[in-house]
Amino acid sequence: MSRLFIIYCALISLALLLAACAPGEPVDLLVSGGTVLTMDGERRVIEDGAVAVQGDRIVAVGTAAELNARFIPRKRIQAKGGLILPGLINTHTHAAMALYRGAADDLTLQDWLTNYIFPLEAKLTTAEFVYWGTKLAVYEMIQGGITTFVDMYYFEDKVAEASAEAGMRVVAGETILDFPAPDFATPAETLEWTEKFIEQWKDHPLVIPAAAPHSAYLLAPEHLKAAADLARRTGTPLLIHLAETETEIGDMQEKRQQTPVAYLEDLGFFEASVLAAHCVWVNEKDQKILAEHGVGCSHNPSSNMKLASGVAPVTKLREAGVSMGLGTDGPSGSNNDLNLFEEMDLAAKLQKVTLGDPTVLPARIVVAMATIEGAKALGLGKEIGSLEPGKRADLIVVDRTGFHALPYYDDAYSQLVYALKAGDVTTSVINGQVVMERGKVLTLNEGELRRQIAHYAKAVREVLGKN
Amino acid sequence: MSRLFIIYCALISLALLLAACAPGEPVDLLVSGGTVLTMDGERRVIEDGAVAVQGDRIVAVGTAAELNARFIPRKRIQAKGGLILPGLINTHTHAAMALYRGAADDLTLQDWLTNYIFPLEAKLTTAEFVYWGTKLAVYEMIQGGITTFVDMYYFEDKVAEASAEAGMRVVAGETILDFPAPDFATPAETLEWTEKFIEQWKDHPLVIPAAAPHSAYLLAPEHLKAAADLARRTGTPLLIHLAETETEIGDMQEKRQQTPVAYLEDLGFFEASVLAAHCVWVNEKDQKILAEHGVGCSHNPSSNMKLASGVAPVTKLREAGVSMGLGTDGPSGSNNDLNLFEEMDLAAKLQKVTLGDPTVLPARIVVAMATIEGAKALGLGKEIGSLEPGKRADLIVVDRTGFHALPYYDDAYSQLVYALKAGDVTTSVINGQVVMERGKVLTLNEGELRRQIAHYAKAVREVLGKN
Repeated sequence: MSRLFIIYCALISLALLLAACAPGEPVDLLVSGGTVLTMDGERRVIEDGAVAVQGDRIVAVGTAAELNARFIPRKRIQAKGGLILPGLINTHTHAAMALYRGAADDLTLQDWLTNYIFPLEAKLTTAEFVYWGTKLAVYEMIQGGITTFVDMYYFEDKVAEASAEAGMRVVAGETILDFPAPDFATPAETLEWTEKFIEQWKDHPLVIPAAAPHSAYLLAPEHLKAAADLARRTGTPLLIHLAETETEIGDMQEKRQQTPVAYLEDLGFFEASVLAAHCVWVNEKDQKILAEHGVGCSHNPSSNMKLASGVAPVTKLREAGVSMGLGTDGPSGSNNDLNLFEEMDLAAKLQKVTLGDPTVLPARIVVAMATIEGAKALGLGKEIGSLEPGKRADLIVVDRTGFHALPYYDDAYSQLVYALKAGDVTTSVINGQVVMERGKVLTLNEGELRRQIAHYAKAVREVLGKN
Repeated sequence: MSRLFIIYCALISLALLLAACAPGEPVDLLVSGGTVLTMDGERRVIEDGAVAVQGDRIVAVGTAAELNARFIPRKRIQAKGGLILPGLINTHTHAAMALYRGAADDLTLQDWLTNYIFPLEAKLTTAEFVYWGTKLAVYEMIQGGITTFVDMYYFEDKVAEASAEAGMRVVAGETILDFPAPDFATPAETLEWTEKFIEQWKDHPLVIPAAAPHSAYLLAPEHLKAAADLARRTGTPLLIHLAETETEIGDMQEKRQQTPVAYLEDLGFFEASVLAAHCVWVNEKDQKILAEHGVGCSHNPSSNMKLASGVAPVTKLREAGVSMGLGTDGPSGSNNDLNLFEEMDLAAKLQKVTLGDPTVLPARIVVAMATIEGAKALGLGKEIGSLEPGKRADLIVVDRTGFHALPYYDDAYSQLVYALKAGDVTTSVINGQVVMERGKVLTLNEGELRRQIAHYAKAVREVLGKN
């Protein structure tokens, strides 16, 4: 044999050997070894499952054995007996208010607003304040398994910026009011700014700009219409507070002889893709209207309980066909944290005691609300909320070895809702990027954040007259 | 100078030097550097405070500066900006049911009892099962800042043994029933055993034996009387489930034309020191009766919500003068964990939404319920529940550096109830013994416990027909 032929054979053998050792397609990330809650249409639960990610998308979901045979991952995350599920979606908050956390509690809404929040916001809520407040909130949310949040506040470009830097998905809506806000003096200015904001961010992989008129009671009908037109025209979500308190219903009844829901329908508000926060005081007719127009609702049990707003008819709304997400509301006054594990637990328990029936709103439905149903309520059901090939890679891993979670009798939904805690989340992937691994947040600078919190807390204390 | 004089001078100097370096009394333990919530009569809050412990008792509570000057501790625990407070008191549970955690959820009470718990208990609840189930529960409770729990279950000598070994304080009551239980066939047997159990454990530093007739509806009046007599005679607490569901009220009304509370009063049941679990369905007259007889109540919000039992009139009961503790109830069916931080949060929020008033049951009262008021409800108000010289040294340290708890605006009660989590507890001292330090439980063998959980979980799965 010639030497060339020997070299040729050797090269062929080497190639075959390499192929045998590495038989699959390369992918960026493989998360494997835990129980996968897909939250897909069939609600498949895969024991010893895995999820493969390429770029910002999920490319496969199956058993660990299948996916290990099929893919060569550049990075591997071992979920070792944990739960792998879609990242949680916080469908309503005012994130930057985290810097006002615990400033005043156990008060009436009026006392809290007039004597605490309005003076604080007037003096302190600046672009920089919102930037750092959002970073604090995003840190907490990533640690607790939230991968998308819906925000209504001020300086929303800073919310977008802070979230994008942290690798967090956000639906950002600048609050439109008929009175001066910390950033804009009139609703016309806010609307104009929102249009530019939408233009600027609409193609961002993580930021979904939105229009966000505060509520039916704080805006004139022409401003509500203008906001809805903008949202419809630009194809962005339209966020609003709706039917939160009984007072709101009474006032609207007196002023316009209809419910806020009927009023908004008459205005054509629901022609856009609407996510309404709270939906506590909605009668059967209202529920029907919301369902007919595909309006999604954000259920905020902590906030509704702490502010004594009432109990949303979650089961009835769902039966009517309304997509119900879960939300924390803002982490000051209405809540003190951004913890969807607690909201899941509360949502289930609050419906049961209110309806006098322990079988309503079972754990499997509550988990859906925190994931796929929240995504649908947001109009993002095709992009996020479940683990399916083609969807954005937003997923979390939850450790299940804590004594508070043991033993396990095959009902992962019940374990997640009633036993596991936000503190059990170990890993988070958003849009294909690993933002937390083994409990360590990778996309935020902890030391710098602590310094900024101390700085802003000092300013808050001064306004509160402490120290 | 003579050499003797020089030696004499040297010795005097040395003694003075030693006295200067060590100017104080020796104590076993000094916990210092955090904000101390004393929960004493004046509800003193001491910033940069400290607690000194000698043997099983607190000897001093004050500022860190004062106590550092006064004492030489053999052991020192730095609380570094954390909260130092009395250990939490879980006033109602069935701890060993932790091994049935998550076996069946979202069911009616009848379905859960008949198709799951009764078959499981009949086959599996043995002395060894209770021993290991209690160890699992105690591990979780220590991690979550609970230093005393009140138990009603079977094989209570094993509950006592497991708790004592773990350094946990327990009020242990063997459930008395008119039908056969896993350990005893008749109430007479149970009563006889309880008397011996009381005799055996009554001088133990951690175990407080109790008499525990299940309820007014599951026992004949003569057995309720006998249990009360035993408790009164031996000076032990008398535990009972009371007015938990509306059905219970209706049944009692039909059978005896009175409420369970009025019925028990007529029997003389309240002549003993009674702790009643639930007290959901108590009318104004009932509330008065409970207050007049010094009956304590255990409020269990998770359980009452999850089982749809109803909402206890906590504010009215407190106004009537009833001491209200907090409880988790059993960690299977009625709850899925043993987490008093969640019960505190729930208790506050549930009263607010039920009464339509966000100012009711504020954080400072809820913390009292979890500590000193729980102790009073148990008849142990002079021994535990607050940090005061002379009381048992039961205290915990809670870390406050988590992003979910920042910033801090001087309201430690609100921070504890609405923002901090069971997972933030770092250190626990019970009866002067450090049972957890920097998150590590020191009195239980984690590996052995995990093996035992796996063993019993396998047996439960077999009965449930899984695997």
